[in-house]
Amino acid sequence: MAKSVAESILFGERMALARLLTQVENRSFEGLAALDELFPHTGKAHLIGVTGAPGTGKSSLVNQMALHFRAAAHPKKVAIVAVDPSSPFTGGAVLGDRVRMRDLAGDPGVFIRSMASRGSLGGLAQATAAMVQVFDAAGFDVILIETVGAGQTEVDIARLAHTTLVVEAPGLGDEIQAIKAGILEIADILVINKADLPGVENTERALKGMLGVAHPVEKVFRHHGQTMNLPDSEPVNASLWVPPILRTIATDGTGVGELMAAIGQHAEHLRQSGEWGRRERARLEAELEALLTETLVRKFRLSVSDAHYEELVERLLQRTLSPWEAVKELMG
Amino acid sequence: MAKSVAESILFGERMALARLLTQVENRSFEGLAALDELFPHTGKAHLIGVTGAPGTGKSSLVNQMALHFRAAAHPKKVAIVAVDPSSPFTGGAVLGDRVRMRDLAGDPGVFIRSMASRGSLGGLAQATAAMVQVFDAAGFDVILIETVGAGQTEVDIARLAHTTLVVEAPGLGDEIQAIKAGILEIADILVINKADLPGVENTERALKGMLGVAHPVEKVFRHHGQTMNLPDSEPVNASLWVPPILRTIATDGTGVGELMAAIGQHAEHLRQSGEWGRRERARLEAELEALLTETLVRKFRLSVSDAHYEELVERLLQRTLSPWEAVKELMG
Repeated sequence: MAKSVAESILFGERMALARLLTQVENRSFEGLAALDELFPHTGKAHLIGVTGAPGTGKSSLVNQMALHFRAAAHPKKVAIVAVDPSSPFTGGAVLGDRVRMRDLAGDPGVFIRSMASRGSLGGLAQATAAMVQVFDAAGFDVILIETVGAGQTEVDIARLAHTTLVVEAPGLGDEIQAIKAGILEIADILVINKADLPGVENTERALKGMLGVAHPVEKVFRHHGQTMNLPDSEPVNASLWVPPILRTIATDGTGVGELMAAIGQHAEHLRQSGEWGRRERARLEAELEALLTETLVRKFRLSVSDAHYEELVERLLQRTLSPWEAVKELMG
Repeated sequence: MAKSVAESILFGERMALARLLTQVENRSFEGLAALDELFPHTGKAHLIGVTGAPGTGKSSLVNQMALHFRAAAHPKKVAIVAVDPSSPFTGGAVLGDRVRMRDLAGDPGVFIRSMASRGSLGGLAQATAAMVQVFDAAGFDVILIETVGAGQTEVDIARLAHTTLVVEAPGLGDEIQAIKAGILEIADILVINKADLPGVENTERALKGMLGVAHPVEKVFRHHGQTMNLPDSEPVNASLWVPPILRTIATDGTGVGELMAAIGQHAEHLRQSGEWGRRERARLEAELEALLTETLVRKFRLSVSDAHYEELVERLLQRTLSPWEAVKELMG
């Protein structure tokens, strides 16, 4: 008997993997069915979100991290999902892939996938979640989810991750920094990449200042730049994690070793504090809700004729019916 | 008999307006009921979206536009909705308001409202849509919807508008520009503000280049910087609008008159081409869908006990049930 798609994925067949990723991205029936079959095999991977503005060298950093995971004493299988919600015609994702190819191509323990599509936002986060599940089931130990920017898309996608890195670079300007304050709330580790550029001290100072608002001041000013190194005299709160601020130069690998150590410490912290389980639960709840909403709406729309729907929209346009009245009429 | 909230709004009472805006932002029952009552009075305002990165001087420009609308031969009532989806602790929206207050405070024909909340994205776009309806019913002729950035939030909110302005400024860097290519697709008018700064030619060149990809090349390179000035020899396509690129200096008002003219021409174009009606229809369809989804999900969740839902989430966590199976079990 021929293997099912899910079986091929579990056997580690790359062609089947690539095909399934496309199917789940398009939310085809076959894709969703295979995803369902694979679900019992998920929940093992460490999901790492990496977000930052264009120009921070985020892709090179992800590249370096992948190389480190591959070169470890116990090499890890690494998947990279690069999400670029900006327009398809910027070509950013494609260019990023090409840069990565040089170092990682040919390594069967690495799989890179980019999504440059701009569907609805919910759709993008949902498609990313589905891809991550496929990689998880396929036995990838680490899944790097790379997103551009600091908008709601990034926040939603970061919610998928166990560990979220926010990447900054010197000289992007104070005004640009301002909008990033929001994303600091989701950062587990802050990285100042391109740390050889002038202005790195200013960037670090700005980040510390913003962290001081996002986190309890006394903790932050004593512990920034370190990971969980509280003095013994202080009661240790197991759920406390103060985001360290690390400097890297991805192009020559400076600081990447320290970054890898911080990622390891964060994973350890998540497991010891029970936070790993809480994040898993939150992710599965969000997924259930999204799938339930999608199913309810699809099922309901099948029960209403297009002509009836069109007629209601026409009456809305003429203002003889309000949206609430339309919903009431639709739901009988 | 006491007036209803909706009646007070139609009578132009500012206190009632402020209160209702808060209620619809929170999606309270009273707010939604009043919104429903007001719906027949909507559909008259010209909705203008203004989006751009922080540092482009977008708020000053919106301020200037409001002053122009007020100083016209037939002054228009102007509402400003400033949406800042970044973190509440940046305080950006508050600062923007304070700058605006100086010129516009005390004018009863102007109403400014900002939203700095970061709910779910759908929520933000939905809350903005509801506020716009309240202003529309309250008799505001022009509603300026200001958003920060170029993410999906901005695209979703821009879908509300009849006319969308994308504001750039010189010197924000090529890398920052790259992500903006996506937003050009929704731009009806491109504004280079702070046009007295060095680098304005580079910014204009970059925008023209990107427009050349987003729109048919031959049209753009012949017509940029002008609004619908096609040669007679060419068949005029009534639905064709080539986004003009305009330069402004909001701080001293330079170029704002030309911008106002372009906005007027765009409104005229929308009405003559039938595009105004198409955008109205698309907006009302999206609103109906959002309201229907919200109602379906709320109603369904009431029919399921929390204990049952919790139990399913627990089984998801243990991987003994897949999300699809959970949905099937919920929907019985």
